[in-house]
Amino acid sequence: METVAENRAFGGVQGVYSHASAETGTEMTFSVFVPPHQLGAKLPVLWYLSGLTCTHSNVTEKGEFRAACAERGIIFVAPDTSPRGEDIPDDDAYDFGKGAGFYVDAMQAPWAKTFRMRSYIENELPSLIGKNFPADMERQGITGHSMGGHGALTIALRNPGRFTSVSAFAPIVSPMNCPWGEKALSGYLGSNRDTWREYDACALIEDGARLPDLLVDQGTADNFLKDELKTGLLALACKKADIPAQIRMQDGYDHSYYFISTFMADHIGWHADRLKDGDEG
Amino acid sequence: METVAENRAFGGVQGVYSHASAETGTEMTFSVFVPPHQLGAKLPVLWYLSGLTCTHSNVTEKGEFRAACAERGIIFVAPDTSPRGEDIPDDDAYDFGKGAGFYVDAMQAPWAKTFRMRSYIENELPSLIGKNFPADMERQGITGHSMGGHGALTIALRNPGRFTSVSAFAPIVSPMNCPWGEKALSGYLGSNRDTWREYDACALIEDGARLPDLLVDQGTADNFLKDELKTGLLALACKKADIPAQIRMQDGYDHSYYFISTFMADHIGWHADRLKDGDEG
Repeated sequence: METVAENRAFGGVQGVYSHASAETGTEMTFSVFVPPHQLGAKLPVLWYLSGLTCTHSNVTEKGEFRAACAERGIIFVAPDTSPRGEDIPDDDAYDFGKGAGFYVDAMQAPWAKTFRMRSYIENELPSLIGKNFPADMERQGITGHSMGGHGALTIALRNPGRFTSVSAFAPIVSPMNCPWGEKALSGYLGSNRDTWREYDACALIEDGARLPDLLVDQGTADNFLKDELKTGLLALACKKADIPAQIRMQDGYDHSYYFISTFMADHIGWHADRLKDGDEG
Repeated sequence: METVAENRAFGGVQGVYSHASAETGTEMTFSVFVPPHQLGAKLPVLWYLSGLTCTHSNVTEKGEFRAACAERGIIFVAPDTSPRGEDIPDDDAYDFGKGAGFYVDAMQAPWAKTFRMRSYIENELPSLIGKNFPADMERQGITGHSMGGHGALTIALRNPGRFTSVSAFAPIVSPMNCPWGEKALSGYLGSNRDTWREYDACALIEDGARLPDLLVDQGTADNFLKDELKTGLLALACKKADIPAQIRMQDGYDHSYYFISTFMADHIGWHADRLKDGDEG
């Protein structure tokens, strides 16, 4: 692991790091904020998965998470959204290829070899974080925005017990039922929709996966709400499955980091409340 | 005045606006955050002047000021740092020309016609803000970063009584005594150093100008501290002039927005304490 940059911030260190990923076969970059802490302490980890077109840097610069993470003692990890590099296959569209990995392990050429963001986020990067940072990997939470909200929900649903706390900002809740998702899942996985279900939060819940509870914020002025995000499908799935979900429609908010940063401290508080109590009872 | 963008944030509106400036002869862009407020209320205004290479957007995206401004009821205004446009003279260097107006009214060709950032910030833009936003122009504070800290200090010193509160992040405190300043002031004003004194915070204090009090944060790991910023000169000038200055050296912080955002809430609190009490006693 190499240090790209480290800046002192809110009494801790905001770092950007890179490493050679075995899963993607590329150099991958991610950011980690480590809050001030006592020597030898192990801190809970909050994963933040980013949306379409983003790298680690969008939330790192605009997310306004550091004040709350410093106050509550939370490590904040922000991965990239796809493999990068000149040799990596891409697509001209913003919603497929680089910057649009959709947190799947691709099964179709030419993507299958490098677009392995599911395994990267579920296995390879957690191992690296556990080894290189003062992280208590028994206390993890996960959140994300839009495509990254989809990532957070599906990864948490597929890995019961791993995440003490789960939330999302304006998530894509059912990629099987929206244009972004249908394009990505058919492109990366192929036409057999049975293989798509493990990448669809609503389908996973329908198939029996569960979350301890859930916080979702969604802006009412979000241009993608009606056709892509379809928050109502998640509310319905949670209701049917008795998952206690707080799904908050936020009046007048859009899909931008102005929306995310407004509610970031709330989400960090939600995670901190659960991560602190998790193993200390 | 035209609206470039408005986004809901922290219960208020983060806007970006443009207008045809009579001072610069160009289209000028700036950002304004208006916090949630009661209909008809007039709110105090905090000016934030940006540093070299910046536009309004750096602090708007990375400054983390909205939470505190929403809590304290402060309007936050972030102007650009120079005129812009294809017809505007420029220099290849990052520290002269576009993005480096140094908040002066230039006297040398080819700059004098358009590089009128002093008059723009002191007169034209305040008038526009007063007319178009719910701003109480009797309650103004000013702050800024680096070149913008220089701007905030010198504008406040030259306009006694206008600003109830003054602060700065890593300001250039004496452009007459550092490479950035000597290049800019000689280039914009000419070789007669007597004309430079009204653009030098330490010289203005030496010449009798005063501030009610002052908050400055300066990182100890700031690469520009020793040769360009020279915080010690300001501390000395304030001491000699009996200006009660809190100049805080912040251990391990650099010159970036990671530093600025860390102490932004402190500065907004400093301004809010003074602006709220100013006219309500």
